[in-house]
Amino acid sequence: MCQSVTKNPVMLHGADYNPEQWAHDPQIFEEDLRLMKQAKVNVMSVGIFSWAKLEPTEGVFDFEWLDEVINRLYDNGVSVFLATPTGARPTWMSEKYPEVLRVNEHRKRNLHGMRHNHCYTSPVYREKTTIMNTKLAERYSNHPAVLGWHISNEYGGDCHCDYCQQAFREWVEEKYRTLDQLNEAWWTTFWSHTYTSFTQVESPAPHGEEFVHGQNLDWKRFVTDQTLDFYRHEVKPLKAKNPDIPVTANFMELFDGLNYDRFKDDLDIVSWDSYPTWHGAKDDLTVASYTAMNHDWFRSLKDGKPFLLMESTPSLTNWQDISKLKKPGMHHLSSLQAVAHGSDSVQYFQWRKSRGSSEKFHGAVVDHVGHEHTRVFKEVTEVGHSLEALKEVVGTRIHAKVALIFDTENRWAINDSQGPRNIGVHYEETVLEHYRALHALGINVDVISEERDLSPYTLVVAPMLYMVRSGVGEKIEDYVRKGGTFVSTYWSGIVNETDLTHLGGFPGPLRTTLGIWSEEIDALSDGEYNAATTLVGNALALNGTYRIKELCDLAHTETAATLMTYDQDFYQGYPALTVNTLGEGQAYYQAARFELRFQQDFYRSLIDRLNITPAFSGELPEGVQVSKRESNEAAYIFVMNFNPTAVTVRLDQAYVELLTDETVTDNLNLAPFGVAVLKQEK
Amino acid sequence: MCQSVTKNPVMLHGADYNPEQWAHDPQIFEEDLRLMKQAKVNVMSVGIFSWAKLEPTEGVFDFEWLDEVINRLYDNGVSVFLATPTGARPTWMSEKYPEVLRVNEHRKRNLHGMRHNHCYTSPVYREKTTIMNTKLAERYSNHPAVLGWHISNEYGGDCHCDYCQQAFREWVEEKYRTLDQLNEAWWTTFWSHTYTSFTQVESPAPHGEEFVHGQNLDWKRFVTDQTLDFYRHEVKPLKAKNPDIPVTANFMELFDGLNYDRFKDDLDIVSWDSYPTWHGAKDDLTVASYTAMNHDWFRSLKDGKPFLLMESTPSLTNWQDISKLKKPGMHHLSSLQAVAHGSDSVQYFQWRKSRGSSEKFHGAVVDHVGHEHTRVFKEVTEVGHSLEALKEVVGTRIHAKVALIFDTENRWAINDSQGPRNIGVHYEETVLEHYRALHALGINVDVISEERDLSPYTLVVAPMLYMVRSGVGEKIEDYVRKGGTFVSTYWSGIVNETDLTHLGGFPGPLRTTLGIWSEEIDALSDGEYNAATTLVGNALALNGTYRIKELCDLAHTETAATLMTYDQDFYQGYPALTVNTLGEGQAYYQAARFELRFQQDFYRSLIDRLNITPAFSGELPEGVQVSKRESNEAAYIFVMNFNPTAVTVRLDQAYVELLTDETVTDNLNLAPFGVAVLKQEK
Amino acid sequence: MCQSVTKNPVMLHGADYNPEQWAHDPQIFEEDLRLMKQAKVNVMSVGIFSWAKLEPTEGVFDFEWLDEVINRLYDNGVSVFLATPTGARPTWMSEKYPEVLRVNEHRKRNLHGMRHNHCYTSPVYREKTTIMNTKLAERYSNHPAVLGWHISNEYGGDCHCDYCQQAFREWVEEKYRTLDQLNEAWWTTFWSHTYTSFTQVESPAPHGEEFVHGQNLDWKRFVTDQTLDFYRHEVKPLKAKNPDIPVTANFMELFDGLNYDRFKDDLDIVSWDSYPTWHGAKDDLTVASYTAMNHDWFRSLKDGKPFLLMESTPSLTNWQDISKLKKPGMHHLSSLQAVAHGSDSVQYFQWRKSRGSSEKFHGAVVDHVGHEHTRVFKEVTEVGHSLEALKEVVGTRIHAKVALIFDTENRWAINDSQGPRNIGVHYEETVLEHYRALHALGINVDVISEERDLSPYTLVVAPMLYMVRSGVGEKIEDYVRKGGTFVSTYWSGIVNETDLTHLGGFPGPLRTTLGIWSEEIDALSDGEYNAATTLVGNALALNGTYRIKELCDLAHTETAATLMTYDQDFYQGYPALTVNTLGEGQAYYQAARFELRFQQDFYRSLIDRLNITPAFSGELPEGVQVSKRESNEAAYIFVMNFNPTAVTVRLDQAYVELLTDETVTDNLNLAPFGVAVLKQEK
Repeated sequence: MCQSVTKNPVMLHGADYNPEQWAHDPQIFEEDLRLMKQAKVNVMSVGIFSWAKLEPTEGVFDFEWLDEVINRLYDNGVSVFLATPTGARPTWMSEKYPEVLRVNEHRKRNLHGMRHNHCYTSPVYREKTTIMNTKLAERYSNHPAVLGWHISNEYGGDCHCDYCQQAFREWVEEKYRTLDQLNEAWWTTFWSHTYTSFTQVESPAPHGEEFVHGQNLDWKRFVTDQTLDFYRHEVKPLKAKNPDIPVTANFMELFDGLNYDRFKDDLDIVSWDSYPTWHGAKDDLTVASYTAMNHDWFRSLKDGKPFLLMESTPSLTNWQDISKLKKPGMHHLSSLQAVAHGSDSVQYFQWRKSRGSSEKFHGAVVDHVGHEHTRVFKEVTEVGHSLEALKEVVGTRIHAKVALIFDTENRWAINDSQGPRNIGVHYEETVLEHYRALHALGINVDVISEERDLSPYTLVVAPMLYMVRSGVGEKIEDYVRKGGTFVSTYWSGIVNETDLTHLGGFPGPLRTTLGIWSEEIDALSDGEYNAATTLVGNALALNGTYRIKELCDLAHTETAATLMTYDQDFYQGYPALTVNTLGEGQAYYQAARFELRFQQDFYRSLIDRLNITPAFSGELPEGVQVSKRESNEAAYIFVMNFNPTAVTVRLDQAYVELLTDETVTDNLNLAPFGVAVLKQEK
Repeated sequence: MCQSVTKNPVMLHGADYNPEQWAHDPQIFEEDLRLMKQAKVNVMSVGIFSWAKLEPTEGVFDFEWLDEVINRLYDNGVSVFLATPTGARPTWMSEKYPEVLRVNEHRKRNLHGMRHNHCYTSPVYREKTTIMNTKLAERYSNHPAVLGWHISNEYGGDCHCDYCQQAFREWVEEKYRTLDQLNEAWWTTFWSHTYTSFTQVESPAPHGEEFVHGQNLDWKRFVTDQTLDFYRHEVKPLKAKNPDIPVTANFMELFDGLNYDRFKDDLDIVSWDSYPTWHGAKDDLTVASYTAMNHDWFRSLKDGKPFLLMESTPSLTNWQDISKLKKPGMHHLSSLQAVAHGSDSVQYFQWRKSRGSSEKFHGAVVDHVGHEHTRVFKEVTEVGHSLEALKEVVGTRIHAKVALIFDTENRWAINDSQGPRNIGVHYEETVLEHYRALHALGINVDVISEERDLSPYTLVVAPMLYMVRSGVGEKIEDYVRKGGTFVSTYWSGIVNETDLTHLGGFPGPLRTTLGIWSEEIDALSDGEYNAATTLVGNALALNGTYRIKELCDLAHTETAATLMTYDQDFYQGYPALTVNTLGEGQAYYQAARFELRFQQDFYRSLIDRLNITPAFSGELPEGVQVSKRESNEAAYIFVMNFNPTAVTVRLDQAYVELLTDETVTDNLNLAPFGVAVLKQEK
Repeated sequence: MCQSVTKNPVMLHGADYNPEQWAHDPQIFEEDLRLMKQAKVNVMSVGIFSWAKLEPTEGVFDFEWLDEVINRLYDNGVSVFLATPTGARPTWMSEKYPEVLRVNEHRKRNLHGMRHNHCYTSPVYREKTTIMNTKLAERYSNHPAVLGWHISNEYGGDCHCDYCQQAFREWVEEKYRTLDQLNEAWWTTFWSHTYTSFTQVESPAPHGEEFVHGQNLDWKRFVTDQTLDFYRHEVKPLKAKNPDIPVTANFMELFDGLNYDRFKDDLDIVSWDSYPTWHGAKDDLTVASYTAMNHDWFRSLKDGKPFLLMESTPSLTNWQDISKLKKPGMHHLSSLQAVAHGSDSVQYFQWRKSRGSSEKFHGAVVDHVGHEHTRVFKEVTEVGHSLEALKEVVGTRIHAKVALIFDTENRWAINDSQGPRNIGVHYEETVLEHYRALHALGINVDVISEERDLSPYTLVVAPMLYMVRSGVGEKIEDYVRKGGTFVSTYWSGIVNETDLTHLGGFPGPLRTTLGIWSEEIDALSDGEYNAATTLVGNALALNGTYRIKELCDLAHTETAATLMTYDQDFYQGYPALTVNTLGEGQAYYQAARFELRFQQDFYRSLIDRLNITPAFSGELPEGVQVSKRESNEAAYIFVMNFNPTAVTVRLDQAYVELLTDETVTDNLNLAPFGVAVLKQEK
């Protein structure tokens, strides 16, 4: 655990907790305290969605119940993350001040209901938030139980009310200064959209404008900025009272409603909520890779500082299409996977199942039956034991030599574009395929935006870097010239930051780096394939034919060398894989969407040539993933078996396995969904 | 026919009739009178949707055309069901009083158009209805042609206008009395929804609240109550003039927009509109079972009193995805199936096809060609003959020893829940599978809500009894203790009447009765299966392995015995079928969704052990269904062949076959889609 | 090219051109002039969507940039189609006069944005249009560069604002005169919809009325009439200045939002925008047939006068699901296919790819790379060469002896009807199947509405002529009696012009002509089939069994003879194909939807018997299509290979091939996607 949260290093173990739902039966709280000890939990997130309880009538506050909750928890060895309650508001507030309610893209104001439906621009909502957060800070920011502030809950969504329109207009004017610059950036001459006054600017709307991509992008940027501004507004009174209490906001998996990158300097700790769909439509190894990439993405937000797994389910969810029970062992494995990738906590939604409303069937540590004699409670307790055994892992870091660029603004632009394949170019899936191939080799990977410093990395992979913003092309070129290795693909270097195409030949600012010119791009139907075959003597010693789908770039080499060519169609013989040497480095270009098997062979060869050391030097059985955390004194290799069957891993040396505190040599036997943490002294 | 409708027992045969559409051509009416005699019809439903004709201008009434219609029909041997015209209103009324128009869940008021779009709370609409119905009652309630009142048409839908919001708030306050009780029932502490004033209560809305299940349930209850109140408002002036004319409202198949159970005491006769999709995507036997269950459901509404088949199509519909012609014989069979299950009528929508607008291609006795020389007209005439031959069946009853609980409130709650399988838990289909297995054994089944008296039944089957309302668990337990046999399944005993979970262990109030504790429930994907195998020596002498899908309960026996266990997954060996003996009775529990073949074997064994006598004691060929009606003097066994091929049924004795008035012995030969009615003297 | 456009016959070759998007970089325009010469283009469409540039502030006009564009183009040998800019309006206009914005069917007014969202009734919009078009006419209508006026862009869509409601009410009153006539035409007695005032009339609405088919039809007619009225309003000031400049409006493929037939007398030239999806989900031959039918439909609008291909893509689109590159040769073939079917131009959207907004990835002659060294530019240049070689084809006509009735009002009515097969009766696909079978025989086909004169044709084919309007039945009967051959199918003769069914027996007004009575119609599920087999000795000498789907008519012959009967179901043996001899002619009736193979055999036999001469007298290889244009002196046979492989066509005589200017004898060798134009002197 990062030192800023707990004084003594301890892996956090806990859950969201809403005892106010059971206020009518005080026995329940006592029973909870007893069960918490049993489950080996040490932290609860309290106060989420508690506004109606904290301020039952406008200006009338009731904190006594919360005092009691926090004090009794603390007395029983349980600390808290204290939430600001802005994720939902009291009914009286919506009734008296309709302006706090969100207005949707159809310009229709919501009625009271649900959650996350406040206008983040509304002066009234901001004022009410300041009052509430100030009172919370005054009362609790020096309470020893409080480990940190949990700001609101899963920020997201947008509002199109008049306040937000006005704020957007000001944001646009601030950004572009002149109408000429705005008109050029949004290319408004097209379809006669020229603005002659900033008052004409509106948010995108289904019954207004949705096809001006620069406008769409700027709206998304505005939504991020306005949400961040609201977040800062929330944090201000908290930090005013005690700047030492860290703040976090729980983020969501692969969420694209906000550009989380913009929040990184305002968070003391990154935290997120992970709900993998184990045993479902996708095989567990795919889900494991996807979840690992998310962990790495969130960890990379704050330069590798340990993060918190703020929510996960101790059993199943209730909002997915199908909520399957985690099979025995999977809860433990899934929890430790988070730690393996840099989390210093395992936390749940939720401690006790609510009795009514929409989430009453969401998994919890304590079920409706009310006692501890359940499979779920036992597995949670087992996680508690393991986290205690991993105390020395707290605060350790992951050192990655490989970076994967997964850029939110690029994602917005790709998914909004109207181009060769409107049924899907699958940016996220494609990034995941590159990640998966690298991760399967036992390589730690940082997942970063295109804004980041590339110099720490030996290899930078940027699939479908459609939007190359100002300075980024130059940075990548410089990185390669100085010896870096860069991998990119088709549909890269196409537009600038306002979605205007780069002129003069694609891939635009990456053309020198990659040494190619992309003339055209062909789209394949779903179920349609091309293929590419390696050339004899290619630089990566690849050998074979690989399947290709979705998009095929028709590129011409300029300074690059061709490693593979297309097998079919009129562009048979055109380059499908190239490499360009520039200065001290090299840049690879994949001209089409290759199958996963290709990425595995490609990265195996490349990693090998670049002498990047994997986390684990032995051969990994199929379905076994590893991740390595390090302190100055030791390395901790997490070996995770995502197979439903037992496997044996050949070890290259003897290790102490931390969960069992036993020494393992030669063979590491892993149960189905088993996990081991091997300690390697330095 | 129930004595309250016709003085002399006669099977009713008729149709909806709108001669006002042909007012410009009086010849048509004369031709209709001639054709009615030919077709052997004796009743017409008139006045449905005739408001614009009856009150062409506000306060100006024209009944003369209706006098003429009713008088001439009566003179020609045709009685009438006289409709109140509230199913649609005149254009002038919408224009002058927009409040009569319905407001949808988006809070948007409809324009004039369609039908069934009135606000049932609107004072103006209620006033106009009273005036109209009073005038109809004054003029016609002593007319000898009038067999009964047909109230409006297919009530359904809801309205969210301010009048309705206010009525809902009053309904809620009347129900819960205090805000505390409301807040607990709806579990509003979750997401800070606490109400601090009844004025804050709103109907569910997509842009407001849709996830508070207790609120959703109460809205549906309110909609039923308000519709019922409007119905009573309609009936009041009618009964005031002549309380002896029976009233009915035509209901719809498997409709869940209203809880029909609440109407039963206000209807003199139950009637419904049946439109099976013969020869379509589902095989005819499935459709036959589904239709039979609907007949039984409606018959059971008023304790088995004969009902009316108020609408059916003489040929095809025009609103289904595909409207197939009924193959020769099917119209006759389908009509007599209604009678077999308790109907004392066969009525059609419609007598004569309209020439324009949306239903002009809906089947009718008289087609656009205008004459009687059509296949459809001939088949209708054949039904007329058969109904004459069944005169003595009028008023006879069905005596069922088996009840199937199909509860509308439970259905609302299950389908609204967010739980393990949001892509569908298929309550209706599951109930139908149990029904189908029982019905295939020749067993008459009552289909009832969980409120009903269980004491008349030897066997009560309650699949997925998710919502067990107050007192129901105790009633079932008492029923079993006194010797009843009860069958239930997974996903039972989960919530109370406001959708709050039962605490302390599922299946909650059924736990003692079933002798098990359900710890968890697993969901399977579509296309994923588990299986269960019988234990040697199980109490039902079942033998084999059966496929399982969708939901698998992980239950522990407490006092119950295990008959079958799961074959696969980590819960292999857990009980899949149990039986608990309690007092004089027994309670079975199916832990997962079994295939139909299992239900067939299960109920065959169970019915056999319970000595429940089927309607027909011989062996039934596949695709042949039976139903038995009884008077004090005789039993009438309807033997129905839903196969497109001829079959022979071995008889156990000689019978008089009523349709042919011949005696059959040994073998009953049934044509494709043939039907026989065997009379058994007592 | 029609003489009214260019003084000297020349095939037009050009594109939409928006140099105003590049006003900030004058070099671009100079480069464009250089590239235009290279590409052999001679016309540009300018001013489309330029309103904001032409009138940047209300009442302030800037035509200087346009002067410069037109003058410089003309100096460089490029003429222009000058557009009225009404397809989009300036932002300032929407801001100041919200009434110019369209109101959708939910009665919600659009925000500014997109294009084609103006109210065509708005007085302000009409006034602004008059001012703008007058200024354009004053300035340019005598400019030698201006070949014609390009009115707005792709008219379409409707508006439900109060102005439009009022206009619709007046239109309805003008049409029906009395409420009685309106009520009968719309059959309003059904569901009590009777109008008692014209003020009650409203456009169809999802929350109002959508099921009154007569109303729906009249709304669509009104939308066409009001759009045509707006078009005339646009044209008026243009013609006032110089009536000799021809006007056109670019139409869209198979568009059913307007009845284009109503525009024919107001257009000087028909033009349309063609975007076939080559190499996609449907095979190229199907796409070629579909595109050919569209060409023939637009050519037939103005009695066969040559039309213009106003837009097509030089490479790919960006708005289709998948935008595939045209394979080498396909661009040339596709362009010449238009000419083969009567176009005197090949024009593109667009000359230069825009840099931003929604269409930046739409194909263009000049790509973002900016130079001419691209595959696309070269293929465009090749088309330029070919068009030069086809100079003598300009103005020649196509003479068809076969007419196919494809009627927009019939299409509206069929697709709006609620009948036997609501999942689709596939009118357009069915018409295309008949077209395709005829076209594959090398027959030129006119595609016309049911209003047209039939006397020029030897054969008239009218699949699914559901709506037979007043006089049409009589016209067809007269046509047959005088020796014409008529082919129709099931679902014909059902309704009149307001969608009221014909009474007295289907096919209504076609009953005498066809000699049959249709009693009922059966619908088949998707994937369900029947079949029909030929009778021995049938008049067409057909022999075999053919598959049938979707709809099966149960008809009785009256005076017709049966050629084929159904194989299955209870209507086995009923007629599936009949022929009736009436006077000098014959009328065929296909009772069900036959497979394509049947249509091929049917029409081969029929064409043969009717001695209709194909465009090309040899045998055509599969995938090769022909079309013939003729002048008084010569015929031009276009032979087009839609196969991706080379084929050889056996010639019956020697021809001069115009593209190569070589004489071909015996064998014509066509490359993959190759095309030849054979000249036959008369």
